Amino acid sequence: MHITIADARALVEAAMAAVGYDAAEAAIVADHLVDCELRGLGYGGLARALSVVERIRNTTTPRRPITVLQETPSTACLDGGDTVGHVVGLRATELALAKARQTGLAAVGASKTWYTGMYSYYLERITAAGFAGMIAGSGTQIVAPHGGTEGRFGTNPIAFGFPTAAAPVIWDIGTADVMIGDVALKARLGEPLPAGQAFDASGQPTCDAAAALRGAFTVWGGHKGSGLAMMVQILAMMVGQVPSPAPQRDSGIFVLVVNPALFTSADEFRQRAAEYVQRVRDTRPLDPARPVRAPFDRSREERARRLAAGTIEVADKVVAGLRREAGIAG
Amino acid sequence: MHITIADARALVEAAMAAVGYDAAEAAIVADHLVDCELRGLGYGGLARALSVVERIRNTTTPRRPITVLQETPSTACLDGGDTVGHVVGLRATELALAKARQTGLAAVGASKTWYTGMYSYYLERITAAGFAGMIAGSGTQIVAPHGGTEGRFGTNPIAFGFPTAAAPVIWDIGTADVMIGDVALKARLGEPLPAGQAFDASGQPTCDAAAALRGAFTVWGGHKGSGLAMMVQILAMMVGQVPSPAPQRDSGIFVLVVNPALFTSADEFRQRAAEYVQRVRDTRPLDPARPVRAPFDRSREERARRLAAGTIEVADKVVAGLRREAGIAG
Repeated sequence: MHITIADARALVEAAMAAVGYDAAEAAIVADHLVDCELRGLGYGGLARALSVVERIRNTTTPRRPITVLQETPSTACLDGGDTVGHVVGLRATELALAKARQTGLAAVGASKTWYTGMYSYYLERITAAGFAGMIAGSGTQIVAPHGGTEGRFGTNPIAFGFPTAAAPVIWDIGTADVMIGDVALKARLGEPLPAGQAFDASGQPTCDAAAALRGAFTVWGGHKGSGLAMMVQILAMMVGQVPSPAPQRDSGIFVLVVNPALFTSADEFRQRAAEYVQRVRDTRPLDPARPVRAPFDRSREERARRLAAGTIEVADKVVAGLRREAGIAG
Repeated sequence: MHITIADARALVEAAMAAVGYDAAEAAIVADHLVDCELRGLGYGGLARALSVVERIRNTTTPRRPITVLQETPSTACLDGGDTVGHVVGLRATELALAKARQTGLAAVGASKTWYTGMYSYYLERITAAGFAGMIAGSGTQIVAPHGGTEGRFGTNPIAFGFPTAAAPVIWDIGTADVMIGDVALKARLGEPLPAGQAFDASGQPTCDAAAALRGAFTVWGGHKGSGLAMMVQILAMMVGQVPSPAPQRDSGIFVLVVNPALFTSADEFRQRAAEYVQRVRDTRPLDPARPVRAPFDRSREERARRLAAGTIEVADKVVAGLRREAGIAG
């Protein structure tokens, strides 16, 4: 169904309030998930709110406050206190930004969290403040190394963002062939996976989403991609994450923020970067009907279109589920 | 032919001395290139020394000293003074390490250099000192973005390294489908390229190495890999590189060094990382005859084997060329 952006936001906030998150935290989760919907990434949007609420209801140990375990002028390591990753990721990002404003270069890690969301969301904050950033992290071990059939990596996203004189350029990928939010949505809706993306628990190829969630997914990019996934994994471990195949137990996230002015004239860099991104878009295309795109171009267009329309399209089941969780009559 | 490691080193040192590099600089280049040979990466080894010497002989403007353009306690940006990248990359690495010893987190960039070599070489220094690192950089614009046929990226390597309680884990890739050293060697020996890796100057697919060097190469990893290559490119621009299709004019390199102890117990991290890397190797394999490998395992084995033998195998043409450059009778 189509619902207004304001209604989508209110629905997520109400569902989060119903599981004990305060208004500020609920607003952070809602803003993040609604932004996913605006960008057309439905698997990480309102459907994710249902998974978040279920995870909280099924957890018996109470969450703890987010605490700083270690800190220097340019670094910090956070214990997320088992709070949802949208809140912990934003806290890590804001702390890294505050430190980078003082020192020019900062890195903040966090673990004991889960569902850290789209790293591009945080990189939009970082680039809007005039900084460059890299974010990488890991969660549930459900992705097999190249040549293997057992989970050793999370879907291990890695993302970079740079400010430019035009729109920021932000690249944000998962190092698995699948996005787990998408698999979870398919499992929820009973839809099959494409062939070649998953193994069942015995190591046999499968297209059954539920069987795959008990097995392992293939890693993106062959041996090179597998190595990148492994580096992201070890980076997450370096900031305290304990790899585990148990769903949504412990994610780690590493946020690096850099002031371009420490290396070059920031204004000149932003100008050159904007011109360069346009030169990439203007590359002679292999197929004249398919111009080369820069990362984030599609997200930006999708978001502008939905913001203009004022509504997003969300599966009826998801809206009904969230209303039920929030105790709102359907 | 087989030559001893000591002879290979002396040959590179003599060739570098013949083009005006001092003994310390020549030793750095020789150590780097011999390490490539020891690891079985011949395209970046002694054959590269020939390209380095030719580049120096064909350059009319004299090189300048390596200078620090900007500096803070945790960052620096270097002007490489048109010195070969093996020397500039090591200087950037050593400066980043020195800063990280003080501040825990450091980033050093450099540009106005060329042939920055294997980033794993620098990461072995960083990890041996107990630090984690990321290195990325760019050179000649000869790689096309996904969906395009004109060069917009260098081969744009990116590498990560972590110390562990066992061997360090180091991942080092190029974001192109080819390695340019390999293409240059094929062009030198008149050998064809595999299909699907290059376009000629008009944008048509080609297997001719020389035509490809006037055209563009394909990027690794489809749209995801293309985005990574672009991020590495912009990072290099942020430290002063000016992208150009002219061969070996201006490479940029960015070196990040992190002390794991700022985020967790360093000893515990090293222990956990070593166990984790072994768990990756022990992943149930898809093909029982092909166990899963960790990045750098093969390099380490190849190097140990050649060090034990005491010799490396180098193409006769390359040895003869270097002897000629060094003014040594054949």
